[in-house]
Amino acid sequence: MDDHGNSPSLDIAIIGAGVVGVHVALGLLHRNIPFTIYEQSSRLKEMGVGIGVPSIIIESMTALHPDTAENLLKVSNVLNNVNVVNGSSDEDLKLRPADRLYDVVIEPFEFRGAHRGRLLDGLLPIIPPGRVRLGKHLESIVDRGDGEKLVLQFSDGSTAEADAVIACDGIKSRVRQILLGKDNPASLPHYTHTSIYRGLVPLDKISNILGNLANCAVQYIGQGASMVTYPIVAKDGVYVNVAAYVHDEEDWPDSDYMTSVGKRQDVEAAFAHFGPSVKELVKTLPEELNRWALFDSHDHPLSSYAFGRVVLAGDAAHASTPHHGAGAGMGIEDALVLATVLKKAADSLVSAQGSASKHKSLEAAFRAYDSARRERSQWLVTSSRHIGVSAQWRDPEIGGDLDLYAKDFTERLHKLMNYDWKDALMRATDEFERQSELKGE
Amino acid sequence: MDDHGNSPSLDIAIIGAGVVGVHVALGLLHRNIPFTIYEQSSRLKEMGVGIGVPSIIIESMTALHPDTAENLLKVSNVLNNVNVVNGSSDEDLKLRPADRLYDVVIEPFEFRGAHRGRLLDGLLPIIPPGRVRLGKHLESIVDRGDGEKLVLQFSDGSTAEADAVIACDGIKSRVRQILLGKDNPASLPHYTHTSIYRGLVPLDKISNILGNLANCAVQYIGQGASMVTYPIVAKDGVYVNVAAYVHDEEDWPDSDYMTSVGKRQDVEAAFAHFGPSVKELVKTLPEELNRWALFDSHDHPLSSYAFGRVVLAGDAAHASTPHHGAGAGMGIEDALVLATVLKKAADSLVSAQGSASKHKSLEAAFRAYDSARRERSQWLVTSSRHIGVSAQWRDPEIGGDLDLYAKDFTERLHKLMNYDWKDALMRATDEFERQSELKGE
Repeated sequence: MDDHGNSPSLDIAIIGAGVVGVHVALGLLHRNIPFTIYEQSSRLKEMGVGIGVPSIIIESMTALHPDTAENLLKVSNVLNNVNVVNGSSDEDLKLRPADRLYDVVIEPFEFRGAHRGRLLDGLLPIIPPGRVRLGKHLESIVDRGDGEKLVLQFSDGSTAEADAVIACDGIKSRVRQILLGKDNPASLPHYTHTSIYRGLVPLDKISNILGNLANCAVQYIGQGASMVTYPIVAKDGVYVNVAAYVHDEEDWPDSDYMTSVGKRQDVEAAFAHFGPSVKELVKTLPEELNRWALFDSHDHPLSSYAFGRVVLAGDAAHASTPHHGAGAGMGIEDALVLATVLKKAADSLVSAQGSASKHKSLEAAFRAYDSARRERSQWLVTSSRHIGVSAQWRDPEIGGDLDLYAKDFTERLHKLMNYDWKDALMRATDEFERQSELKGE
Repeated sequence: MDDHGNSPSLDIAIIGAGVVGVHVALGLLHRNIPFTIYEQSSRLKEMGVGIGVPSIIIESMTALHPDTAENLLKVSNVLNNVNVVNGSSDEDLKLRPADRLYDVVIEPFEFRGAHRGRLLDGLLPIIPPGRVRLGKHLESIVDRGDGEKLVLQFSDGSTAEADAVIACDGIKSRVRQILLGKDNPASLPHYTHTSIYRGLVPLDKISNILGNLANCAVQYIGQGASMVTYPIVAKDGVYVNVAAYVHDEEDWPDSDYMTSVGKRQDVEAAFAHFGPSVKELVKTLPEELNRWALFDSHDHPLSSYAFGRVVLAGDAAHASTPHHGAGAGMGIEDALVLATVLKKAADSLVSAQGSASKHKSLEAAFRAYDSARRERSQWLVTSSRHIGVSAQWRDPEIGGDLDLYAKDFTERLHKLMNYDWKDALMRATDEFERQSELKGE
């Protein structure tokens, strides 16, 4: 017992049972730190969305909780290389010989892709019964001061107590809104002025236009727009998944609804400066398409992810566009640092034999997490945006130079991969010690 | 009716219901050419073997039979890039930073991998009932002369007639033995003096030795040996599949048995000149391993794949080591050319209104197939061997120069990919016309 009468054991609330929340939970489980996940949905439903992570993250997941590494390998496949074709060329692309399909090749770091639902299905059974509470939509967090637990108030009228809160509630984080207030622009994600029009076209239609390129994963880049295509298998046949990245200068009406119905004619207009092959491809799209607006946290980055005993992780802290293919990986990196510093905090409470303030120890842990993670995760948001812009030849330095584009992209991938997670954990624990001494009583 | 009283329609016997035989059958089915497959096994069992093909083959499979292209996309996954690490370096490989895992990168053409059994399971239902005869082990082929059908004699005492025979009976082809006689060394495949020792090691064991490299597909090359590792998921956990390619100067006792039990100590001896990390990895292998001898047709290439009205396709014609990852693809390319020239032959019989000799037309078709396919498929056998040798630093020009190795490998991949299948079909049909005129009566 410390001098406030609390048991030194920690009781952590995790907001959100998505990919990041569940990985945080398993990191705590592996370290015997008690937690409860509060999820606003009334059931753990599968979201039909794919996520991508660099394969090198698997090693650090073993440190988080060995089952998370194993699960990722089980449910993921190696992703296609996305190699680049100049979509603005006047060439008839279907005539390209098979050994000269691409104009430039991005250095092929290995990535893995998984269906979000399948990833979670493999992990949720590991969490002990009762540790996930569904239908818990957070209304507010009441801080009753030093020594008292935080009180979470939910829309259903119920409350819960916790020593600390880890918000993994995604791009539209309720916790971020509570912490910053609705008038703060950083409380919401903002439209990046790019949206993705997605459509499926039968493979044979695309083969007639693109030849061999139809069967491979290809990124077409060009003036003012870009596109990724790859074959996928559906129940009734094989299709090419077409994702057209379209830039606009409009506002997006409502961040609550990030998807809408898009029109093929808008895609045609966006690809007006492309060559005949890509234009013909666009004509094969259905007249009405799913349109998915890309929002991120780029314009209003947070100055800290730590707010006392409340902390933000994953998209709640640093929502990114998908151009790097590493958003989910950033959240998993967050989870490992959080689990590590919270273990340090728990150990310090035990070794201090009740003399340390739990409150201050948790604050120190979250500040240490912030110092270890903020720069890298905000870099990703910026770098991903940059890749999206340069793929549309809107970057003034890169312009339409495909070699420069590939060089720049490859350098960014090197920076993404060049993350020494063991060193990051050491820096975080050092910072925890430093913060604990600063604030120690 | 021609002047021998035969109907001009063709009746083709396909020997072997493996990947190549089934693709040949579907090519004929798509062109309304009657066929029967004779398979020696009493049931169509799944072979637990993976095959790899370049993704660009999908376009030509659409021409073979659209369902074959669709099936490949359904049952295959994109393969990992195999990037190269100098296994002989004294470096502790687990300390490599994640953005410098590989020493050289092979240009990443897209390949797809499939389980042979799953591939066939998707195709066999398309073949009409009764067209596959099981338990038919071929003993001999009797040629009764011009105008008469060939007679196939099977071990069960039964016989069957056919206008022509396409042998797709694999590396140990019975048809090749019948055609060449057992004393001809080309009738059998020969040992390449390389065998693969395969073992599974739990991922965490390898992670302790190789760090990040354990989670990616890596080719370790070095003095006298080479190794490929990649993670795989089994029912009871995640393992690293280790395939150690070991060179020897011994003979292989019996080509009927290409697998045996290998000993870890032999692998240790083979990797004696490697660095500490790879040596430590070898020590984690089980004491007894599956050992798979690599045989091919390199030392005794055939001077023709066409023997009158009998023709060889796939491994029966050109058995290759697996270093190119393209053996199955060659057989599928064969199938498309065979189906195309046989369609020409069938059309010529109809248009000639019975005046052409079916016998001579089939011979012309098979000679045309041979002229279109032999050079490329024999090049693959040679090139695949070369890659295997150079990965073990046994090529005098490449030696231990990893950049030269990558450059050479990449050039070979370019040649593999640079196959204009439409042009090949045109050349084959032109050659068919030429051969038909030469031999026409």
